[in-house]
Amino acid sequence: MKDEQMNGAESLVQTLLANEVEVCFTNPGTSEMHFVAALDHIAGMRSVLALQEGVATGAADGYFRMARKPASTLLHLGPGLANGLSNLHNAKKAGSGVVNIVGEHAASHIELDAPLTSDIEGIAGPVSHWVRTSPSAGTVGKDAAEAVQAAMTAPGQIATLILPSDTAWDMGGTPGETLKAPSPEAYDASVLDTAAAALDGPETLLLLGGTALTEENLEIAGRIAAKTGCALLAEWANARMERGAGRVAVERVPYPIDIALKVLEPFKRIVLVGARAPIGFFAYPGKPAVLTREGAEITALAHAGADLGTALTDLCASIGAQDTDPAQVAEPDVSDAPEGRIDLDKLAVCIARAIPKDGIVVDESVTTGRAFSPATRGAAPHTWLNNCGGSIGYGLPTAIGAAVACPDRRVLALVGDGSAMYTVQALWTMAREGLNVTALIFANRSYKILRGELTNVGVGNPGPRAIDMLSLDRPALDWVQMSHSMGVDAVRVTECEELEAALADGLTRDGPSLIEIML
Amino acid sequence: MKDEQMNGAESLVQTLLANEVEVCFTNPGTSEMHFVAALDHIAGMRSVLALQEGVATGAADGYFRMARKPASTLLHLGPGLANGLSNLHNAKKAGSGVVNIVGEHAASHIELDAPLTSDIEGIAGPVSHWVRTSPSAGTVGKDAAEAVQAAMTAPGQIATLILPSDTAWDMGGTPGETLKAPSPEAYDASVLDTAAAALDGPETLLLLGGTALTEENLEIAGRIAAKTGCALLAEWANARMERGAGRVAVERVPYPIDIALKVLEPFKRIVLVGARAPIGFFAYPGKPAVLTREGAEITALAHAGADLGTALTDLCASIGAQDTDPAQVAEPDVSDAPEGRIDLDKLAVCIARAIPKDGIVVDESVTTGRAFSPATRGAAPHTWLNNCGGSIGYGLPTAIGAAVACPDRRVLALVGDGSAMYTVQALWTMAREGLNVTALIFANRSYKILRGELTNVGVGNPGPRAIDMLSLDRPALDWVQMSHSMGVDAVRVTECEELEAALADGLTRDGPSLIEIML
Repeated sequence: MKDEQMNGAESLVQTLLANEVEVCFTNPGTSEMHFVAALDHIAGMRSVLALQEGVATGAADGYFRMARKPASTLLHLGPGLANGLSNLHNAKKAGSGVVNIVGEHAASHIELDAPLTSDIEGIAGPVSHWVRTSPSAGTVGKDAAEAVQAAMTAPGQIATLILPSDTAWDMGGTPGETLKAPSPEAYDASVLDTAAAALDGPETLLLLGGTALTEENLEIAGRIAAKTGCALLAEWANARMERGAGRVAVERVPYPIDIALKVLEPFKRIVLVGARAPIGFFAYPGKPAVLTREGAEITALAHAGADLGTALTDLCASIGAQDTDPAQVAEPDVSDAPEGRIDLDKLAVCIARAIPKDGIVVDESVTTGRAFSPATRGAAPHTWLNNCGGSIGYGLPTAIGAAVACPDRRVLALVGDGSAMYTVQALWTMAREGLNVTALIFANRSYKILRGELTNVGVGNPGPRAIDMLSLDRPALDWVQMSHSMGVDAVRVTECEELEAALADGLTRDGPSLIEIML
Repeated sequence: MKDEQMNGAESLVQTLLANEVEVCFTNPGTSEMHFVAALDHIAGMRSVLALQEGVATGAADGYFRMARKPASTLLHLGPGLANGLSNLHNAKKAGSGVVNIVGEHAASHIELDAPLTSDIEGIAGPVSHWVRTSPSAGTVGKDAAEAVQAAMTAPGQIATLILPSDTAWDMGGTPGETLKAPSPEAYDASVLDTAAAALDGPETLLLLGGTALTEENLEIAGRIAAKTGCALLAEWANARMERGAGRVAVERVPYPIDIALKVLEPFKRIVLVGARAPIGFFAYPGKPAVLTREGAEITALAHAGADLGTALTDLCASIGAQDTDPAQVAEPDVSDAPEGRIDLDKLAVCIARAIPKDGIVVDESVTTGRAFSPATRGAAPHTWLNNCGGSIGYGLPTAIGAAVACPDRRVLALVGDGSAMYTVQALWTMAREGLNVTALIFANRSYKILRGELTNVGVGNPGPRAIDMLSLDRPALDWVQMSHSMGVDAVRVTECEELEAALADGLTRDGPSLIEIML
């Protein structure tokens, strides 16, 4: 197309498609109408409508984790971006690449301070690695290509392109180039010998994160562990981890600070590959923030944005473990069907039994899920996604993105009721798109984690006013009606037998379903 | 209390109470637990739990508009603030005072870059007039008092106090002083004569905003109009406007740009009292952004933060209209009960008939509501609140705040279905607090305003992909189930008779109810 035949919005859509950005999670407004119109006559972009932008940005996070390439979001000015901000925070912490397209008033309109005028660059900055306001229709294509390239920078970055409406509707749009994703940085080879020397028996921990948790890289880590006797752990929160029978099984550093301190206490030497040295999720009065034992020697071989496969391969070679059989390979191991009233242990077994081959588990189970990891070690091979940024409301949206990225796989979303309420609008998008998501809502009717945290921060005997602020039982949420109201079939279960039946149904039907689990 | 007996969080609660901040809309997390604990043993703060922070901040906006003093919010670090950002944007544009308390990691923890670490000041900046991170337990009280004072600066400001958790739990808390609210600025007396001279017949518009729309100030404006023959209008969006029988009735500048241009075309002279010169909500290709006629003489007598009562009183005196009977006083005028299938005109009449004396109407009716203003001109005396920032999702939360501020008055929330979904979690808080809110959901199952906006920006014939991105009918939302799921009684109506009955029930019962109106 020649310039005079294309407006800025059209050049933007063309550029995104040429750079393999093929999905747009969106809630558009007036200032985005030319982008919407461009999607009408340029085929190839799957537009997924969300009823609140937190759903859109969380979906983009889940999409990147599974597709290993970014989706776009289309957001309505500063407030639309603001609604998506907390899940962009989570995406940023997960190392997910996202290309945000944020509409803005026409340049001449901004100075008039209209109701929707705000400092969009200011709002975007804290959650973005890359922010740019495109100055004209002619530059939109180039800017979009650079935005995608920024988003593809390893491990993945948040790029926010702000699109004034006149740059969208003016003619003179010029598609940007197809740019290559930057290669990941090299790992720190200068410490390879130090790392190899540190791998000396069970007092050494090889701590893994990021893409060190692919099936292939876990296998290399397993060889290293078999050869040296070192321990393997993953970070507490991991964007994506391959797990289940036949894979090297790696437990995560626990969340509760006292347990984490205990688990990490034995390690005098720690080698980091795609991970950071463990710290507390929060500070607690009188407890350490750094969780490793005092004086532990920490060797950072590779940060999350580095080439972790090469780092592990070289480390493995340097200790001569290439041909060693990997340690900690999980055997198929699923317990018998539990019976009767669901409790947390039985729940974990039910989930382990239900996970289908190649299932994707999105984990926002918070307190309910502390038994899930050991129970699912020998489940069918699957992918496990954690919340890396700690902002609740990540689970249901991320499940949308994973399902859009992997239409041939089943998604199991494990979500606490408090977390699920944050972005509950996600259910409607699941129904609309017919996504194969089975959402388990853990109805303990409280922000249960905060009951424990009150004690951890030194508030021993919370009174009724404090307890009331952590309770969701007045009134009780009815998740079955909630789900039906947005077009998703749902059932409430209290017994293991009911749960097994509901999981079997949900994981084989077309489209989404929800199971409210009474705890 | 002496310092060694009080931690920072306790000094904060004491200071807020001493400065008449008596309500806290909240969703707390670990870093806020000491504030929660302080609420246990210090009586006087009403804590209202929200299941998403957009509900909390929108409620604080509504509370200020009706109480004329700020509430506090308690938000969990950067992401909690981020979730509340778009309704803070609306509150900022409305001139509402809000005191945000945002938890932060302990100072020593921030540098560790934990999962929830973010640039909180950066996130707060674009929606705040005042931002401070309290450095120590000993300063929290003083900082809190200054935050309240900032929030009370006319017309009302957003003050964000960031509270690192160690400043909350450390001893040494010292309650801050009780500070006076700053007096509003004087109006611009230097242009009083110009303004008075401009008031010369129907080619002059006296455009009102902010507190110029109180009953008393409207009456003064009515005297001026009666004496000079000038026209009266209010801005398109007004934080709070007193209306109904016995009050000076003032129409608003219309939203649709072509209609607004037509309404404003006659005015060669415009006097602004608490208002700004009208501009387009958005820029549209080929249409003007400034809506007043070319060459119009505009006299800005008083901005929204100034003493508007004195400005109007002096203007009235300078033209000798003190004893003139006000023009445009609305007579009681309510049409007969409409019958049959609800349409937009019948709906407006039903609402006019239902508004109870001293009712508070929260208007987020978007396209559905364009007939509401003329229809309700002669309804029982009531207060009308608009969305001033244009970010949807303001209606249900603002209704919460209005109901908390005015327990003896009835709140009628008029909300489009697309807008209501943005902060749908508000229904649960209404149920929990037993608030006397009747929520009308206008179920047109689309972002209907955007259909019109597609045409306004020059996209004449939207295709199926564009139309699909503006539609909410696949699947249809079931508002009755949605409402029941959160503990709010609900009914669906299609006929005027059903609507009248449901309104009569909703506006007399204890606690909230919802009416889904099929359009």
